[in-house]
Amino acid sequence: MSVIKTIVTRDAIFPLKPGEGTDAVHRDPVYSYATTLIETDAGRRGTGLALTLGGGNDLVCGAIELLAAPLIDREIESLMAQWGVVSRQIAEHSQLRWLGPHKGVVHLALASITNACFDLWAKVRGVPLWQLLLDLSPARIVALLDMSYLEDMMTAAQAEAIIESHLADRAAREGVITSGYPGYDTSAGWFSYDDRQIADNARRAVDSGFTALKLKVGSSDAERDVRRATIVRDTVGDDIRLMVDANQQWTLPAALDVCRRLAPINPFWIEEPTHPDDVLAHAQLQKEIAPIPIAAGEHLPNRIMFKNYMQADACRIVQPDALRLAGVSEFITVSLLARQRNLRVAPHVGDMGQLHQHLVLFNHIALGCEKLFLEYIPHLRDRFIHRADVRDGVYHTPRAPGASTDLID
Amino acid sequence: MSVIKTIVTRDAIFPLKPGEGTDAVHRDPVYSYATTLIETDAGRRGTGLALTLGGGNDLVCGAIELLAAPLIDREIESLMAQWGVVSRQIAEHSQLRWLGPHKGVVHLALASITNACFDLWAKVRGVPLWQLLLDLSPARIVALLDMSYLEDMMTAAQAEAIIESHLADRAAREGVITSGYPGYDTSAGWFSYDDRQIADNARRAVDSGFTALKLKVGSSDAERDVRRATIVRDTVGDDIRLMVDANQQWTLPAALDVCRRLAPINPFWIEEPTHPDDVLAHAQLQKEIAPIPIAAGEHLPNRIMFKNYMQADACRIVQPDALRLAGVSEFITVSLLARQRNLRVAPHVGDMGQLHQHLVLFNHIALGCEKLFLEYIPHLRDRFIHRADVRDGVYHTPRAPGASTDLID
Repeated sequence: MSVIKTIVTRDAIFPLKPGEGTDAVHRDPVYSYATTLIETDAGRRGTGLALTLGGGNDLVCGAIELLAAPLIDREIESLMAQWGVVSRQIAEHSQLRWLGPHKGVVHLALASITNACFDLWAKVRGVPLWQLLLDLSPARIVALLDMSYLEDMMTAAQAEAIIESHLADRAAREGVITSGYPGYDTSAGWFSYDDRQIADNARRAVDSGFTALKLKVGSSDAERDVRRATIVRDTVGDDIRLMVDANQQWTLPAALDVCRRLAPINPFWIEEPTHPDDVLAHAQLQKEIAPIPIAAGEHLPNRIMFKNYMQADACRIVQPDALRLAGVSEFITVSLLARQRNLRVAPHVGDMGQLHQHLVLFNHIALGCEKLFLEYIPHLRDRFIHRADVRDGVYHTPRAPGASTDLID
Repeated sequence: MSVIKTIVTRDAIFPLKPGEGTDAVHRDPVYSYATTLIETDAGRRGTGLALTLGGGNDLVCGAIELLAAPLIDREIESLMAQWGVVSRQIAEHSQLRWLGPHKGVVHLALASITNACFDLWAKVRGVPLWQLLLDLSPARIVALLDMSYLEDMMTAAQAEAIIESHLADRAAREGVITSGYPGYDTSAGWFSYDDRQIADNARRAVDSGFTALKLKVGSSDAERDVRRATIVRDTVGDDIRLMVDANQQWTLPAALDVCRRLAPINPFWIEEPTHPDDVLAHAQLQKEIAPIPIAAGEHLPNRIMFKNYMQADACRIVQPDALRLAGVSEFITVSLLARQRNLRVAPHVGDMGQLHQHLVLFNHIALGCEKLFLEYIPHLRDRFIHRADVRDGVYHTPRAPGASTDLID
């Protein structure tokens, strides 16, 4: 029996070095975690994170304190046995849902709360989170999920059937546990790095074993985007997968124009071309630039928006982030939706990959998702107790109990 | 010269009587305003409101304090001459936009800030807000608006042309200033009122001059919805417009079922049938239940979601709320989008109609929007200094300078 006795928050702010984390829209990020710390009667602790860029991180902490209260005195195993119901009750708080619903500060708070519960759960069981998830039956997995408002695309029974259908050939995919999961490098191409820096960084990324990397675009000067993408392509050669990311900066007409001009560098995907609420603009753009896939998810707040994106064929690479969605459970829900449509899943890592390294193993082994690659951003490495072990461009499987989200005090 | 010197917030909480404000989703509302109070060097004050249902109202106040700082020392006329640029700068705050973007707590905060600026501006000019807006040239109106991400539907030039095109025959619509703008009664049919109460309330609403009223539906027991809608229809007769409002409660399959069963009571619209992020579910439902129109907007966070709804034919009654959107200016933007598509505009009144009574006059006279009716909810009447003058079911035109948003201390 592990009963939750205290829930406190930490407004954890981590300034970056000049240029780090910059993109076309976010020019001065201060990576920050609205952190949920839960502790049981036996002194076991769970840590949950939601990412912000600094400003307003304390507002998310405030929302955590309002929303997490019902978890006090709950036993962790019984809580997680019906997490789908509990998380829906929190999300549907009849006053606080007005601040969303299911988006913005209250949903980020639910992400942090949820992730803390999963971390605690895995620690209490004494296993890494990926192992815990793989040990659950399909029915237990589905009981973790709030699948409301998805009925027209996927019922709980259909979700369970998907997991069931991938049980038999799991062994064929379990090799990833020993080989590790490939990473891709985002930090080579931050927006405010100059041309020489991105070339040097791209070369260094490839030299250190990455086979895929990303460049920030979305300049007001499209020539700059094309020039820099060409520099990186020329630097790394044709065998490296190169993604470009506009961070929502373009209008639809601008996106149509610049995406066409970027086609010659053969982007593996074009990420967040325009406003994340604009389902139909993404759908039109996806149609125009196919077969180049649009990638989206970093700012899609919940499973319902993802459902719309998939139904409208508005993106072909799905990028859920368990620190933007309502935590690990809504991440799994979105992964199931993507699996149903045979769409590739490549998480955005607000957690710097710490938590998602567990989730991509689950997605690949339990859901049969393609082993693609996981974003890697090194800037907060020293802030975590159990640092992701990324060597030779590969995430090596975490072995410590929990979700790898504990921060150094 | 009126220069903004102080900006403070007020966490204004107004408990309601039992049953008031209840719907299928919001069972215990405490109407609350995250209030922005700005004051000039000459002691002129502007009041801006964003509605919440109690919980988290202080979080919105916190976000206001973070976002409003750039307005200090700005002169109000020069500020409002380029409000479209200024409001976009606030909305695009490179750290705080992560908490949205353009939705949730940060966008509610921008609503409150924006509305305070408009109230102050009208007071400095010594006119009611509707008069101020009608006195502006089409170009000045468009300069108030952030039209980014709308380019594929409406450019600034097209917006200006719409206003321009309705200048010549304004006089034919100005009679509304003396006759007043019709209201409709929402408070007859709150969700937790029993059958007898809603019948009594409906009778009383009609007796007091309302020609339209609304009933809350979305019960887990569809029979209850149908029974209560039938009671109200039988009570008020066929000549009264009767709207039903499910407040997002239904899944798409449930909505398809219940909407068909509600058709015999001839609803003037069916409001918020399912989750507000579900553009495609609304589009499918609208197709199935046409010609009954879907009404939506209370929880559409921004102009981009409204654009998607309109492009997908996902609603035919547009319900912007200047306390959910980024205030008066984004309300006007959404009204222009609706006007372009010849869709009816019937605001949701988080302000209890105090501010929107100005905006519907502008919409009708300046944009040529149909004179439909404006929602009326009386529960906070005594909280405002300049109470909306609603008699015989009609909003009589406010004459005091400002936006009618000042609260009693």
